[in-house]
Amino acid sequence: MSVQPDSVQRINTPTRRDVLKAAMGGMIATLWGGSPAYAEEERMTTTTKSYALPSVLTYDDVRAVSPALEHYTKVALLDGLWQRPELSPRDRSIVTVAALIARIQTIEMPYHFALAINNDVKPSELSEIITHLAFYSGWANAMSAVAVAKDIFHQRGIGIDQLPPAKDKLLTLNEEAERQRATQVSANFGATSPGLVQNTTDLLFRDLWLRSALAPRDRSLVTVSALIASGQVAQITYHLGRAMDNGLTQGQASEVLTHIAFYAGWPNAFSALPVVKDVFEKRQKH
Amino acid sequence: MSVQPDSVQRINTPTRRDVLKAAMGGMIATLWGGSPAYAEEERMTTTTKSYALPSVLTYDDVRAVSPALEHYTKVALLDGLWQRPELSPRDRSIVTVAALIARIQTIEMPYHFALAINNDVKPSELSEIITHLAFYSGWANAMSAVAVAKDIFHQRGIGIDQLPPAKDKLLTLNEEAERQRATQVSANFGATSPGLVQNTTDLLFRDLWLRSALAPRDRSLVTVSALIASGQVAQITYHLGRAMDNGLTQGQASEVLTHIAFYAGWPNAFSALPVVKDVFEKRQKH
Amino acid sequence: MSVQPDSVQRINTPTRRDVLKAAMGGMIATLWGGSPAYAEEERMTTTTKSYALPSVLTYDDVRAVSPALEHYTKVALLDGLWQRPELSPRDRSIVTVAALIARIQTIEMPYHFALAINNDVKPSELSEIITHLAFYSGWANAMSAVAVAKDIFHQRGIGIDQLPPAKDKLLTLNEEAERQRATQVSANFGATSPGLVQNTTDLLFRDLWLRSALAPRDRSLVTVSALIASGQVAQITYHLGRAMDNGLTQGQASEVLTHIAFYAGWPNAFSALPVVKDVFEKRQKH
Repeated sequence: MSVQPDSVQRINTPTRRDVLKAAMGGMIATLWGGSPAYAEEERMTTTTKSYALPSVLTYDDVRAVSPALEHYTKVALLDGLWQRPELSPRDRSIVTVAALIARIQTIEMPYHFALAINNDVKPSELSEIITHLAFYSGWANAMSAVAVAKDIFHQRGIGIDQLPPAKDKLLTLNEEAERQRATQVSANFGATSPGLVQNTTDLLFRDLWLRSALAPRDRSLVTVSALIASGQVAQITYHLGRAMDNGLTQGQASEVLTHIAFYAGWPNAFSALPVVKDVFEKRQKH
Repeated sequence: MSVQPDSVQRINTPTRRDVLKAAMGGMIATLWGGSPAYAEEERMTTTTKSYALPSVLTYDDVRAVSPALEHYTKVALLDGLWQRPELSPRDRSIVTVAALIARIQTIEMPYHFALAINNDVKPSELSEIITHLAFYSGWANAMSAVAVAKDIFHQRGIGIDQLPPAKDKLLTLNEEAERQRATQVSANFGATSPGLVQNTTDLLFRDLWLRSALAPRDRSLVTVSALIASGQVAQITYHLGRAMDNGLTQGQASEVLTHIAFYAGWPNAFSALPVVKDVFEKRQKH
Repeated sequence: MSVQPDSVQRINTPTRRDVLKAAMGGMIATLWGGSPAYAEEERMTTTTKSYALPSVLTYDDVRAVSPALEHYTKVALLDGLWQRPELSPRDRSIVTVAALIARIQTIEMPYHFALAINNDVKPSELSEIITHLAFYSGWANAMSAVAVAKDIFHQRGIGIDQLPPAKDKLLTLNEEAERQRATQVSANFGATSPGLVQNTTDLLFRDLWLRSALAPRDRSLVTVSALIASGQVAQITYHLGRAMDNGLTQGQASEVLTHIAFYAGWPNAFSALPVVKDVFEKRQKH
């Protein structure tokens, strides 16, 4: 696999980690350090499979305000955090994209949506992450993501045929688990807000969660990341348990905290720690 | 009442619900699906009483990223949630506008500020909602709303004579209730932050809350919606009780949760559920 | 010190308070009330030491939506809150800037970043506040601030030589206190997220917190302000204690709550009150 100078290829081979490291430590830095106009020009002239990562800010911009922030971005974040083996680049992109949408951090969306696709998050999966977060972060959060993603999809020629359909093929529901969930929520809150409880069953657990465009494990990873990133501590217990039932390992969940601290701030990661610890310990007892 | 093709009239007749349903299910979809430039052109040529709902995104944009999100927006949100009889379109607009301002979700503000006016939220009331949320969501949240509302007011010819004055006529204060509130807060926190406690009395409860530009029940609805939308669970008990004292029914409060889940995300609605349940139960015992 | 008509000089003399009062009550109001284009022109023609405060909105804009909000901004905020002697203008600017970055309230950043420099927050300190909040509020929060600060730095001719270096001179670490902190966090959460715990030690407490570009007391003020402004109640106890160890007085901490209520909303200030009260009371017992 050859890497074009001054461009970033889509990375989908077994050597992805090394290529990513090379790309992020060197070439992206170069591109990101160029002016947006320059990056745009590069993008236009590269092959259809190679794309620069668009960014609203260049390294020059960051350095002009804080040489330290440029340094930490390169050394601690891109060469440090993103290279840790505890979580794949694809998972890190899913966590990051979910955190950005949950917090409406639009300034970093162009870069990270493009990086996510480079890191093997399929366009159909990015589309479904946005749809999922309309419900879990808010409709306007999803619309802010649409405003960014539509340009990236357009530039890369990603058409509607590559996106999940409005009515997706549904996965098989675990009727027993869903019956238990619905019964418990209804007993607790059915009288408090019958409309919310009914929509939760009909729209979320018997529809959205069953859409096959995103594997349940990835859908859970998106949900847990959004909860931690927006300080929704009270909802972490249920969804982290569900995520681990869906295949997220404890090591991966642990590293989600390490990763998300950079994108949602240390305090959100630390406020999640006691709840995550409790979930880990209760599962080990069973 | 005749409805112009390709435009949305201000809806203020007894048949509002049906007209809204027709408008939102059909015409708005058409308009919203057009390009912003087209919508702008329509707005310029319609009569002074008819306005398109401005939107940063079109349905084409949404579909280009997620056909599913377009589908859910039309079916679950506009034809579903907004048509439920448990809350009037005016109340739904108040809840939505408060949630958007509380979360600085600017991308949906143009559409929902305009829809609010169509749904009989008076410009003077929208103005006062923004003023109120300067204190309850933060000064910059209000300023973000000003940046959007000024264009809508300008386009619709809404002048300063239609807005609440700087020094509004004040409603009669319930001195006994306010004395109790002030005494309790002062006893708890007067030594911790005397400035905050004094401002709360002088600026909020003896000034802002008494301004007649917004009925106390609506002002409470704005406050409770902003609290739920921004995850301020600890402040819900007092303000939901006050809202119900001011005339918000339990059925309406219950439906606020159903509604706000879409705009502030399911987790914020679920984190509010136990507190809302507790308020409902304690009031039923008395 | 002469003050140019229609401009705001950098304020760094003993009469700062009076000049600020005059400037904010009169001249800034005039400037802020002018059109942005006019303000821009003023900035270009003033001396190199005098700058208008840039603002996305003018008072005319605010009045066109809410005469009451204009009134409260002038009377309650600029002539009221900012003139209270309990906190210096420099401290108020630090608190405000931290709150705006923590909440990505970009619309007020140009005005308050410029005001901060006028209030004797050095450009190197503003730079370091942004770097600090990359870790404490999130990377994209810092990048949103970079996008605003780079223009202000450029306009004022603030070059990289005035900014803290990537690798700053480090203050002496209190090894005993840090050993205690690290031991406790590691005992609690070392098994839950070893990566997060290690980064907290290596990147935050043995690097970022020791950078000399910001005095520990000011760094703590930034941290506490960001925590309160983003509703991170669970993290306030540790950092408020640390802030007071670093020299923040109880009177100043108390006034931070009074101040931040306007910028982060009353509910965030009230949710912090019980925790702040508890910290104050426990320190008085020792």
